Amino acid sequence: MATTPGIGAPSRVLIDGRPGDRLSILDRALHYGDGLFETIRLAAGYPCQWQRHMDRLILGAERLGIDMPDTALLAAEAAEVTWGQREGILKLILSRGEGGRGYAPPVPAVPRRLFLTYPLSSAQGRDWRQGVAVRYCQTPVSINPVLAGIKHLNRLDSVLARAEWNDPSVAEGLMFESTGELVSGTMTNVFLWDGRCLMTPPVDRGGIAGTVRGLTLELAARLGIDCLVTRLDRAALDQARGLFLTNSIVGVWPVRELGGRRFDLAQLPWNLLDRLYQAACTPG
Amino acid sequence: MATTPGIGAPSRVLIDGRPGDRLSILDRALHYGDGLFETIRLAAGYPCQWQRHMDRLILGAERLGIDMPDTALLAAEAAEVTWGQREGILKLILSRGEGGRGYAPPVPAVPRRLFLTYPLSSAQGRDWRQGVAVRYCQTPVSINPVLAGIKHLNRLDSVLARAEWNDPSVAEGLMFESTGELVSGTMTNVFLWDGRCLMTPPVDRGGIAGTVRGLTLELAARLGIDCLVTRLDRAALDQARGLFLTNSIVGVWPVRELGGRRFDLAQLPWNLLDRLYQAACTPG
Repeated sequence: MATTPGIGAPSRVLIDGRPGDRLSILDRALHYGDGLFETIRLAAGYPCQWQRHMDRLILGAERLGIDMPDTALLAAEAAEVTWGQREGILKLILSRGEGGRGYAPPVPAVPRRLFLTYPLSSAQGRDWRQGVAVRYCQTPVSINPVLAGIKHLNRLDSVLARAEWNDPSVAEGLMFESTGELVSGTMTNVFLWDGRCLMTPPVDRGGIAGTVRGLTLELAARLGIDCLVTRLDRAALDQARGLFLTNSIVGVWPVRELGGRRFDLAQLPWNLLDRLYQAACTPG
Repeated sequence: MATTPGIGAPSRVLIDGRPGDRLSILDRALHYGDGLFETIRLAAGYPCQWQRHMDRLILGAERLGIDMPDTALLAAEAAEVTWGQREGILKLILSRGEGGRGYAPPVPAVPRRLFLTYPLSSAQGRDWRQGVAVRYCQTPVSINPVLAGIKHLNRLDSVLARAEWNDPSVAEGLMFESTGELVSGTMTNVFLWDGRCLMTPPVDRGGIAGTVRGLTLELAARLGIDCLVTRLDRAALDQARGLFLTNSIVGVWPVRELGGRRFDLAQLPWNLLDRLYQAACTPG
């Protein structure tokens, strides 16, 4: 398989089932961000929460009108590209495929599957229980009800928000709509804790319906912890007793500090957080 | 130079000054739509309105924090890739360049220049004075004040809107914010005419500040025609006496029909439209 050295380069790549490190300049992912992606944690050699990632990909493909490849084929290619790698990150890009000039999707389009594997970074590999420091971002979330929730390739809002800081001690930044409603972190979903109840923003206008967000809603229900999916603003953050962030690579990040305010991590519902981490970042 | 046959394939390609038809899978344009583009009309061997395209690219690069290449270098590469081609389309993609995993832009980033040339389609080459039929689109425009106006690569809203129809007799579709304000066509800007005055929507929340939109505002002022840049809704369209669309490839498209309603093209300010077409689609 192709190996590309350099800045945070992938260890291995499969393009439509074949090793490679270059892509046709006709690909619509390049021209318009016309496609979807999934970032999947590898643990003990297995892709964690595979089915949730496939479910979201299916939903996204339906929304964009991209033919969804057979998930058995995707699973086989995922197994091939991760062969022998126990820990790390598996990224899948599903592009609409090649096209001519202009926005109109080609008919028929031949979707392209791109798998890349990466090692975990040191930040991703460290003890999650220590919590992270978080900041507020200025860049607003892009709003489009038709694109909200799915993990499409139009991610300039997150790119610009993430470019707002380079202090390595700050792990994440919170993003809002222009009108002030909290949506998510640049690469995480957000849960507020008031001591008895969880709250998280809907992802119906912007943001991504994270796989671990879905897992959190389910596990909380199973543990008898209420979780409200509701619009939240800066005032709600100020009133929160604690908060945590979720994504598929780190699982769960308790927030130790937000915009200078420190939180007592002991206040968080650790029974939920522990199960969440187990479910998100271990092969079980 | 590389030549790629197939569906609406480009005639020639230059990647960072060299012929090629493949791009590194590490390019951030592919992963996040992290870049900008320009689509430029070629007439009598020259790129029309070159300076306007460069001005918008500079603005976009500033907004995204991408190092803008020397415009003299871009002009030289444009001349090389279009050598011997009198009519057609020149597309320039400026990507942030290669990067590792994650939204954070690499420091330093090495932006990538991609030039592609295409022939004009038969629709683009025909007599513009006949006007075009236009429809209403359901897909809303993506809203983000930080990204509005510039020609970035996050174009899924236009892709989905353009996928709403495949009737070749319909040339364009109008797009709105979720809240009902008119923004633009999928690939054009829109001007309404009430018999004395022009009106066009601002591009401060979504949409692109088209080069021919800018030209229209200037030419109208020079001809003593008032043009209001103002929020417009469906009712404003219903009341309009006529409308026309602008973009850099077709120049200007008078609207003959919108969503079944027919317009008398003779009502339009043809002195403006003629000069607009001349300025947009001829080398002078």
